[in-house]
Amino acid sequence: MSTRAGIVVTGTEVLTGRIQDRNGPWIADRLLELGVELAHVTICGDRPDDMTAALRFLADDGVDLIITSGGLGPTADDLTVEVVARFCGLDLVLDTALDDTIAAILRKLMSRYPQADFEAVRAANRKQAMIPAGATVIDPVGTAPGLVVPGRPTVMVLPGPPRELQPMWHSALDTAAVQQAIAGRTHYEQATMRMFGLPESELADALRTAQQSITAFDRLEITTCLRRGELEIVTRYEPELSDAYTELVEFLRARHPRELFSDDGELIDEQVARLLAGRTVATAESCTAGLLAARLTERPGASAYVAGGVVAYSNEAKAELLGVDPELIARHGAVSEPVARAMAAGALARFGADAAVAITGIAGPDGGTDEKPVGTVYFCALLADGRGMDRNVRLPGNRADVRERSTTVALHLLRRLLD
Amino acid sequence: MSTRAGIVVTGTEVLTGRIQDRNGPWIADRLLELGVELAHVTICGDRPDDMTAALRFLADDGVDLIITSGGLGPTADDLTVEVVARFCGLDLVLDTALDDTIAAILRKLMSRYPQADFEAVRAANRKQAMIPAGATVIDPVGTAPGLVVPGRPTVMVLPGPPRELQPMWHSALDTAAVQQAIAGRTHYEQATMRMFGLPESELADALRTAQQSITAFDRLEITTCLRRGELEIVTRYEPELSDAYTELVEFLRARHPRELFSDDGELIDEQVARLLAGRTVATAESCTAGLLAARLTERPGASAYVAGGVVAYSNEAKAELLGVDPELIARHGAVSEPVARAMAAGALARFGADAAVAITGIAGPDGGTDEKPVGTVYFCALLADGRGMDRNVRLPGNRADVRERSTTVALHLLRRLLD
Repeated sequence: MSTRAGIVVTGTEVLTGRIQDRNGPWIADRLLELGVELAHVTICGDRPDDMTAALRFLADDGVDLIITSGGLGPTADDLTVEVVARFCGLDLVLDTALDDTIAAILRKLMSRYPQADFEAVRAANRKQAMIPAGATVIDPVGTAPGLVVPGRPTVMVLPGPPRELQPMWHSALDTAAVQQAIAGRTHYEQATMRMFGLPESELADALRTAQQSITAFDRLEITTCLRRGELEIVTRYEPELSDAYTELVEFLRARHPRELFSDDGELIDEQVARLLAGRTVATAESCTAGLLAARLTERPGASAYVAGGVVAYSNEAKAELLGVDPELIARHGAVSEPVARAMAAGALARFGADAAVAITGIAGPDGGTDEKPVGTVYFCALLADGRGMDRNVRLPGNRADVRERSTTVALHLLRRLLD
Repeated sequence: MSTRAGIVVTGTEVLTGRIQDRNGPWIADRLLELGVELAHVTICGDRPDDMTAALRFLADDGVDLIITSGGLGPTADDLTVEVVARFCGLDLVLDTALDDTIAAILRKLMSRYPQADFEAVRAANRKQAMIPAGATVIDPVGTAPGLVVPGRPTVMVLPGPPRELQPMWHSALDTAAVQQAIAGRTHYEQATMRMFGLPESELADALRTAQQSITAFDRLEITTCLRRGELEIVTRYEPELSDAYTELVEFLRARHPRELFSDDGELIDEQVARLLAGRTVATAESCTAGLLAARLTERPGASAYVAGGVVAYSNEAKAELLGVDPELIARHGAVSEPVARAMAAGALARFGADAAVAITGIAGPDGGTDEKPVGTVYFCALLADGRGMDRNVRLPGNRADVRERSTTVALHLLRRLLD
């Protein structure tokens, strides 16, 4: 029997969707790497009864480990430690060493706000030093300490802000209680393929065919999803099934050689960064208005290959900053192949770059016509040696979808040109 | 007793964090507007037992309405309808009218992929026309129909893709079964304040003081969260407590007049868009590399006030595209007040805009120094009439945090200048 875990995300602001939970997905990834089966993620508000019900649900479901995130702050609605202590039948006790640690952190933090009252803030934070008897303290990264409460299930209590939770995860994992709780885990391999330009239902059809030709197919745990306009195919399998997985990869490659662009999980962003090594790229964006440049610079060290970009939202900006002939816009419209090409040529020249990509399209909700409905986007990728590729697509979805998917299409065009 | 609901999000790709759930938050918002209390969001993979356990948990918790999202697709791991039918004790029956509807949708969709096999895809999609006996069909927006299964609790079954789920929500809500399930809902008011430039612990302190001076304070359900570098304070209350809420707003305004920038929930993005009416803005970005321009153009109609921007990632680009004197960079460094000012002046001139904002900083993880550590960011906002404001901050967090928060600081600077 494999080891199972559950995640309890707390916080009314997360439950009501005012902030997006980033911890559940991150912890899920860590659990997968460990070979711990994640059974459920539950999200509830800052109401003790609902939090208790979620803990009870997971305990009754038989999970070995519960991880909570959130509700460790100084405000009155932060109740996680109290609720977990009661759920585990433990008293809360003041940890004086922890109290001193928190005071030292606060003193440093408050030096940035000279007008604030240190003693008032310290008093407000004192409750963060109250812990369930017998729990192990995980040192705070912000001001909120984490906890590991041993038992069946063992409960790992972590703070809500991802930049605090993530470094604390590894310390919590190393505790004896957590190691014991996950001792029964199974080792799985996990591998990812990525495809672009294939409808999801055709992939489903391909997988049904693969099922007939690959003997151990049913023991491969395959999940597929559409993500940023690409298909992601993640497969988990026990190590002895690696041949069956290789068969699956070869099957899909033979059937869709052009669409299968990554068989090792590498993202299109990583491929483009790799292909750009030693070269520089510039962007010329209209409807995406900087999203492509922002995406190209998400990775540390991007300054080695990103020269910059122009967001040419108005026709005047296309002319003034990218040297697009206003006649061309008048004749073909701003959303057209000749204008995309002129934008790319302008970016190439202005930035003195080795490669350039241009995007011009209609993100909506307004501005569509019969001929060029909302979602129509023109792309051009050019190299300094004169080679180039053009493309135009009609993307589904709303304004945000069209803008985001356009950056994916642009990266794929750039990859094909650079490759 | 108020009406409560629970959400079951299904999909291994969501559970494992490979795609972020956007449906839970969106449905949560709709429920809040309706005055239905959301008790829990649960996320589970495409495993029938886990999905059944989640449904059972919510039913045992006494919710009146369960909304499921996901698992309605054509692939073998899409099992929601089958699981819900079994959970409700109902047989699956073929809905022939629905079968025809789906076939018609598929035919249209497949015309974009002439090489695909229509009959194979249609066969794969046939299971989408199998529904629990007695359920109401919600017409598909993609190819997956939704369902409302009456009972206690009533179960609303919706597809995973947000652009399919959202239009179907309203049809599902209008069914007799859902209306009956939520008949007991309470009407709540909900109002939002936003603050910028205040540490969270000082807000906590302010709220503790308010508690002592506002009589009905404890009946205001207040949640606070840090969001994109701002504090969001959302309060729910029964309509007769509107005076108490007004007292709270006035209390916070008196105490933090500069920090409280929105008392009606209006976002800084909306305020800036409003203040820009009749004017145009241009951006000059280094470390944010287009994120500010992208954020300014998130809203439909942004072309009325956004001229464009330059992503000047390299020093050469700062000189060539924004006219920043290389001497200035050599003397003060690219991350400095004079360079931020020169970038803003360059954007103002090149785009012929009425206002411009520049951002230059160190997003990390590399590039920091003792004097200018990672997170150091300089801003400048300028108007064509010569007025301007400078600012520099040291932002916490990782590369992505620093980049995102920088856009928030820039918008606040622009607001102060335009106001």
